[in-house]
Amino acid sequence: MTNEPDDIRDWWQTSIIDMAPGKIAFRGRPIEDLIGTVSFPQMIWLMTRGDLPSPAQAKLLEAALVAGVDHGPQAPSIAAARMAATCGVGLNNVMATGVNMLGDIHGGAGEQCAELYMLIAGRLDASTALDAAIEAELSAWRAAHGKIIPGFGHRFHKPTDPRAPRLMALVREAAQDGIVTGRYAQIAEALQARIGADRGAPIAMNIDGATAVIFCELGFPPPLSRGLFCLSRSVGILAHGWEQMQQGGRNKGPMPPDYLPRYTPSKPDES
Amino acid sequence: MTNEPDDIRDWWQTSIIDMAPGKIAFRGRPIEDLIGTVSFPQMIWLMTRGDLPSPAQAKLLEAALVAGVDHGPQAPSIAAARMAATCGVGLNNVMATGVNMLGDIHGGAGEQCAELYMLIAGRLDASTALDAAIEAELSAWRAAHGKIIPGFGHRFHKPTDPRAPRLMALVREAAQDGIVTGRYAQIAEALQARIGADRGAPIAMNIDGATAVIFCELGFPPPLSRGLFCLSRSVGILAHGWEQMQQGGRNKGPMPPDYLPRYTPSKPDES
Amino acid sequence: MTNEPDDIRDWWQTSIIDMAPGKIAFRGRPIEDLIGTVSFPQMIWLMTRGDLPSPAQAKLLEAALVAGVDHGPQAPSIAAARMAATCGVGLNNVMATGVNMLGDIHGGAGEQCAELYMLIAGRLDASTALDAAIEAELSAWRAAHGKIIPGFGHRFHKPTDPRAPRLMALVREAAQDGIVTGRYAQIAEALQARIGADRGAPIAMNIDGATAVIFCELGFPPPLSRGLFCLSRSVGILAHGWEQMQQGGRNKGPMPPDYLPRYTPSKPDES
Amino acid sequence: MTNEPDDIRDWWQTSIIDMAPGKIAFRGRPIEDLIGTVSFPQMIWLMTRGDLPSPAQAKLLEAALVAGVDHGPQAPSIAAARMAATCGVGLNNVMATGVNMLGDIHGGAGEQCAELYMLIAGRLDASTALDAAIEAELSAWRAAHGKIIPGFGHRFHKPTDPRAPRLMALVREAAQDGIVTGRYAQIAEALQARIGADRGAPIAMNIDGATAVIFCELGFPPPLSRGLFCLSRSVGILAHGWEQMQQGGRNKGPMPPDYLPRYTPSKPDES
Repeated sequence: MTNEPDDIRDWWQTSIIDMAPGKIAFRGRPIEDLIGTVSFPQMIWLMTRGDLPSPAQAKLLEAALVAGVDHGPQAPSIAAARMAATCGVGLNNVMATGVNMLGDIHGGAGEQCAELYMLIAGRLDASTALDAAIEAELSAWRAAHGKIIPGFGHRFHKPTDPRAPRLMALVREAAQDGIVTGRYAQIAEALQARIGADRGAPIAMNIDGATAVIFCELGFPPPLSRGLFCLSRSVGILAHGWEQMQQGGRNKGPMPPDYLPRYTPSKPDES
Repeated sequence: MTNEPDDIRDWWQTSIIDMAPGKIAFRGRPIEDLIGTVSFPQMIWLMTRGDLPSPAQAKLLEAALVAGVDHGPQAPSIAAARMAATCGVGLNNVMATGVNMLGDIHGGAGEQCAELYMLIAGRLDASTALDAAIEAELSAWRAAHGKIIPGFGHRFHKPTDPRAPRLMALVREAAQDGIVTGRYAQIAEALQARIGADRGAPIAMNIDGATAVIFCELGFPPPLSRGLFCLSRSVGILAHGWEQMQQGGRNKGPMPPDYLPRYTPSKPDES
Repeated sequence: MTNEPDDIRDWWQTSIIDMAPGKIAFRGRPIEDLIGTVSFPQMIWLMTRGDLPSPAQAKLLEAALVAGVDHGPQAPSIAAARMAATCGVGLNNVMATGVNMLGDIHGGAGEQCAELYMLIAGRLDASTALDAAIEAELSAWRAAHGKIIPGFGHRFHKPTDPRAPRLMALVREAAQDGIVTGRYAQIAEALQARIGADRGAPIAMNIDGATAVIFCELGFPPPLSRGLFCLSRSVGILAHGWEQMQQGGRNKGPMPPDYLPRYTPSKPDES
Repeated sequence: MTNEPDDIRDWWQTSIIDMAPGKIAFRGRPIEDLIGTVSFPQMIWLMTRGDLPSPAQAKLLEAALVAGVDHGPQAPSIAAARMAATCGVGLNNVMATGVNMLGDIHGGAGEQCAELYMLIAGRLDASTALDAAIEAELSAWRAAHGKIIPGFGHRFHKPTDPRAPRLMALVREAAQDGIVTGRYAQIAEALQARIGADRGAPIAMNIDGATAVIFCELGFPPPLSRGLFCLSRSVGILAHGWEQMQQGGRNKGPMPPDYLPRYTPSKPDES
């Protein structure tokens, strides 16, 4: 393994893993030193960030990972995974089916919410007051993306998404213990209050809003908010796919077989 | 939400999640009691098995999850995820690309290995001696599937896959502590010795062989060996996809752009 | 592009495409000679088989491709694609979601049916009579795979799947014109009669059974039966994904939002 | 099938397919009238547009579908599909792997190019001169998206992508015959000339630029440019996946097994 052309090796260069026969090291740490020593959330951090978090940091990350595992078969990713499980594909394909659907709308709200928090934080860094920073970024967001603010409101969990208050309590604890600054918790709660005031009714912080606080507090860049959510939701996708495999069924559709979709003719090119 | 027809609700029945507005419970446990209380591996167990493991059981599961996160860009799942990351899709699509490829050969060896261990264990239950049980199942396996025995041997890590001895040491520790019986460790090591004797040269236990021991010791059915591996490898897929996004590139191919695949004409219908 | 190492180029060797700057040739034919000259089905044949079919052969293939495009939103692949279209992913991801689910049960029946036809044909080649050949292979199939015979019966289209008789009429026409031998049509119809006799009631040939006849008559190996079906069904997946995008919706679940899946607690490890 | 609640049926309403036992009709046309009567490209049009094209319109669509089938294993979608084919998944999963990667950068250029053409056409409709319309939209595009103009230039095919001139010749023929107006061909060629003038060197129109002309001339909305490209490229993905299955291999990586990716350590959080 010494004579291969450098351009080929360089094409696939990585700072994540260093391998040789009998050797695997991640971010400079031999795998045998990590196995049984670091927690799974610490390993997730090491792989995506390059260094190991403290146990307290990892605990906060872990809370977010636990919180997002599932939201039941009405979530399209879960329903699709369960349907795939009846089509004669492997459990890996079942999982990929679900994860593939965690797009900008289904799984990307956390990423967008983290971006919004960071834009507000950027204004604070430039000495804008919190209220003014929120007003400015909220207006800009609505102008660019419409009235839905990622991270807030839930079409089902009203008035409260039970995951958010618990996660926010953990962030506040961590801030009191000096694990995180608490800055993004403050931003998120002020943002929540402002959206509620604008609509004249309180609005719930949802799972995306709360986990984005945690990911921002811990220093993850916004796209990893989506990546971490995908890791978390993969657990529910696996559990549901596996449950469906045990329930059985062949080519499970969205409704019992004796239901038929409504046919509504359209004029040509109106489709 | 009270008048909907029962057949529709039943079509999507589940024992995993119980929801109502403001309420989410997994396997009968409110999510707010789980967040910040159970570890991510405990949550994975709860979701896939229905009950909570002890911390010691969860630690052993965690070691297996940490061990399998990545094997670098020469693994097709990692390479494909990195290439996808340059094609203008979301990080969820990048992850799905990798997980989708963890099929019978790439990610299914753990499942097959667990099946083989359990077949041997079944013979022990029927009072066959270990050597005879191994001989019988090894012959049957080779007759059905060919000479490659899942879980043993590695085309790259010779003579030893550094992950396996560490994992096996943790299993032995857990057996000494009464967390697991150690039965599958014994089966695996006897199987390893036998394969080595048959080929006239020692053979390494690989990551699939060692994690299958853990999953069997902990009572996971074989298909979940693959599912758990997919959760674990999703971490590496995410890390590599994200690294590639930061490295940049557009439509990254498998080789630097100035390399061309060799064209080798075939006769018609020889393709 | 002349100095790259041979082992790299060989690693990606192909007989399908020959490229150089300004040059693209498929199976030895310059792309500019194919565009506007061959039909899309001819191109599909050229790419997968290595040679060009006659127009009459291509017409028969085309009929099978037209027949399989869609079976509506109760098919899990179509439903999943429509749900994906509301999750904020690209139309390519929507299509991949559907195609990924055309597994052994959903999309593989054509492949399995083609295998069964070919096994029967193999017995005919060895001078077994048709009835005896069918009896032998039908018994073997049922012993290995259970009572469902791929290609026959439809849970919805009773007594007749309207696609099958039309496709079989085209095969008979082609046989009369000497385009195909008609051998597989004869096998399929005798098999259909036998299954019906065994169950004491006529059974319909379904889309998989009829398209498998065509693919076998045209000389495609069985795995391509699935591949060609995937090409065909991709059309319906695209049409439905696009229709859903125009209908709108966000995170479309399998049921209207005010329906809830039934929660049915299980005992631990019963999941 | 008459008593099911309307809200369920409405949830899955469609104008594409009308089904009853023994009946399948697409856009109001019984499937048995379509099989053997319409071409595969006509069926693609019917499914995505709602009406049937004339044979001449379908021929032009067909040329675009033939042109885009493949660009060899250096395209990430093809390489990933070939790698997937060695991982123990089905041919449908192999195809989904490739199609899933035809994202904004890899498969979306046609869609973006069609959008650009239509923006220019919109200015023509408002009586702007062609040169001024191109200048305005080109400036806006560069300001929003950077210097790469989708549909023009090819990193490999210099000075000419052999597919584009042939496709454009067919468009001109069709315009002469009154099948299409030729308006988008005129826009595209003027755009090509302008980009070339801006950079001081001629630039090739590539496959995306030429097929977008055809799709626009035929009245397809821009997102379908991507969808139609996915249908076309699925053919190459299938052909390559199948060729790889026949070549064999297990867990094929991007390079021969004795090559190793370069490990380049990063400082923490630089990853």
